[in-house]
Parts: sequence; structure tokens; C-alpha cells
Amino acid sequence: MKKSLGAATLIVPTPTWVVGTYDQDGKANVMTAAWGGICCSDPPCVAVALRAATYSHGNILARKAFTISVPSENHVVEADYWGMASGRDKDKFASASLTPEASTLVDAPFVKEFPLVLECELQQAVEVGLHTQFIGRIVDVKADEAVLDSKGKPDLEKIRPILFSPGNRSYYTIGEFLAKGFSVGQKFQE
Amino acid sequence: MKKSLGAATLIVPTPTWVVGTYDQDGKANVMTAAWGGICCSDPPCVAVALRAATYSHGNILARKAFTISVPSENHVVEADYWGMASGRDKDKFASASLTPEASTLVDAPFVKEFPLVLECELQQAVEVGLHTQFIGRIVDVKADEAVLDSKGKPDLEKIRPILFSPGNRSYYTIGEFLAKGFSVGQKFQE
Repeated sequence: MKKSLGAATLIVPTPTWVVGTYDQDGKANVMTAAWGGICCSDPPCVAVALRAATYSHGNILARKAFTISVPSENHVVEADYWGMASGRDKDKFASASLTPEASTLVDAPFVKEFPLVLECELQQAVEVGLHTQFIGRIVDVKADEAVLDSKGKPDLEKIRPILFSPGNRSYYTIGEFLAKGFSVGQKFQE
Repeated sequence: MKKSLGAATLIVPTPTWVVGTYDQDGKANVMTAAWGGICCSDPPCVAVALRAATYSHGNILARKAFTISVPSENHVVEADYWGMASGRDKDKFASASLTPEASTLVDAPFVKEFPLVLECELQQAVEVGLHTQFIGRIVDVKADEAVLDSKGKPDLEKIRPILFSPGNRSYYTIGEFLAKGFSVGQKFQE
């Protein structure tokens, strides 16, 4: 018999992703978000949900673009900071001593020091409630060569992304290879 | 200088969640999805994206409800199977020897053996492309007592959810506690 915990956003795992935007003056901004996920394979799209009160929210609506930079666990302190401060009154890149790099494909910057980046054009803004969900069409994925596997794909174990657990609002590392997908489950197929 | 990988759904981490629905005959069905995430805090909502070709897609539209059951790593084989077989021609619960439990709050079943469950009413169906994104209002979260922390919240380290990495289409375990959120980043605040 399971225990009822009420209506709450208590699911695991959620990601720790950094949303990059430009403000009206062209200042690069970043904010950290755990409310997001892939939402379509074709065209490839990713969704990230932000409160209207955030500085990034207005930036995305104005520029129709954003990036997602995936931090490694060694940048957890910077990522956490970017989830607390606002770009309205801070240069969040400068405060954290990290570097904005301009996307050549969309009107948004990404985090040069982070190993994996998605460049997105705004496809839809969906009002859900307190949060607006921004659906971005992924125009390109860019990665440091050092985090690619032998087939040229991003390797989770080299990226070492950060998990967020809403229950205790804490960050966790990724673990180890468990199983090959679309493979181990074959044992139940007749 | 980062390497361009093209327009693709190559981001990490993505979750391994199981979507529970009833079909028109009241048969319980499940499918595994990695394309999802929380999309609003108030009202609490979660999004999961399914292809129109899936059996679950029609079930959600007809019943206006779904659940998300979070498998532990010890059920990775069952979860993988549920991402391959279709409920159109299989009883996926019976094939995997797991148990559907009826939600008393929404018109959908969840997986009794999985430690964490979200019961959702369909709020919006967003057409994105190949995938439809179903936004569910979380009516209740239910968890096994054994996976709760001392404050009664779901504990990531006890649930041991499964990560999916789209690059090599493989599953990974979660790792260890890294840092307290809304805390470690204070060092960059003035």
C-alpha cells in the first residue's frame, strides 16, 4: 500500500540544465532549470519550463531562441548559483567566471566551458500555470570532442551531467552503465 | 571549439518512466518513455511525449488520464520490454509478470511493484511533430514507505531510478549525493 504525498512535483530524476539567452541590450544571460525534457524526435525538440517572473522568460519571447548547456558535475556550484541569482541585476557569467559563446545558428549564447550544448529556435510557448513551457526546435547539438564516444555520440559517462532530486532539492551524480536499451527487454518478447 | 552533431535529440540525462493507461476495453497498458519532464510547479504538471502510433496515445486521449510509474534499476529489463512491445497485441503486464493497480483518483492504472507513482489528469495535448506531448496535472504522488527520506519525501538514493542516454540508447544507474541545491551556489552571491 503506497503512501499519498499529495499533488506535487515529486518525480525523479530531473535534469540540471542551463538555459542561455540574450536580453534586450544583448547581454548574455543564463539560468538553471530542472523542469524540462525532450518532447519530440522529429523535428527534434526540447522543452524547458520557466516562471514568467524570470528574466530569461522575457528574453526567450523577445529573441525566439534559447540554448541549453549541460553542466558536468564539476560545475555544480556555478549551476546552483545560476538557479538563484537573476540576470536583471547581475552579469551571471562574469560572477561565476564562465564564458558566453555566441551561437552562430540561433540568437542566444551558450556556456563555453560546458561539454554539451543544444541550440534551439522557439517553436511554441505553452502556458501551463505558474510556468510557461518553451518548446525549442533543436537546430544543432554541439559537444566537446572529449565527451564523444567511439561512434561520435555524446557519452553520458564522459559528460557526467548532474541530476536534481526535487524531494530534498539536491544534486546527484550519474552512476554506471546498467543495460543496453531496446535489447535486454527482448527476453519478454515471444 | 565544439563539434557539430546536427539536429538531434542528444541531451543527457533523460528519465526512464512508465506511462500507465487503460484501453477501450479497460485493459491496463504500460509503455516506457524517456521523452518527458516536469513542466509546471503550480498546478504541479508533468509532460510526457508519445508518438501517435503508440497504443497509449489513443488511450490517453480517450480516458483523459495517465499515470507515471518510476521503475527502480532492478526492473530495467521489464522497463526496456515495455518500450518495445505494443499493448495492441499483448498484455504487457502479464508478459512481464508485474501487477496493474487501479488509481482511485484518475482513470488509469499504475505499476504496483514500482516505488514512486504520479497520478495525472490530462490538461493539454500539444502537437509538436512526430510526438504529441501530453501535459498531465499531477493529482497525487504515491510512494512506497521504504523509499521516503526522514522528512517523508521521495529519496532518489532509495528509489534508484534509471537514466536513459539517447546517444547510445543505454540505461545507467544514479550515482551519489553531490551538493545541496539553493545552497552551494551562495558562494557567488555578493
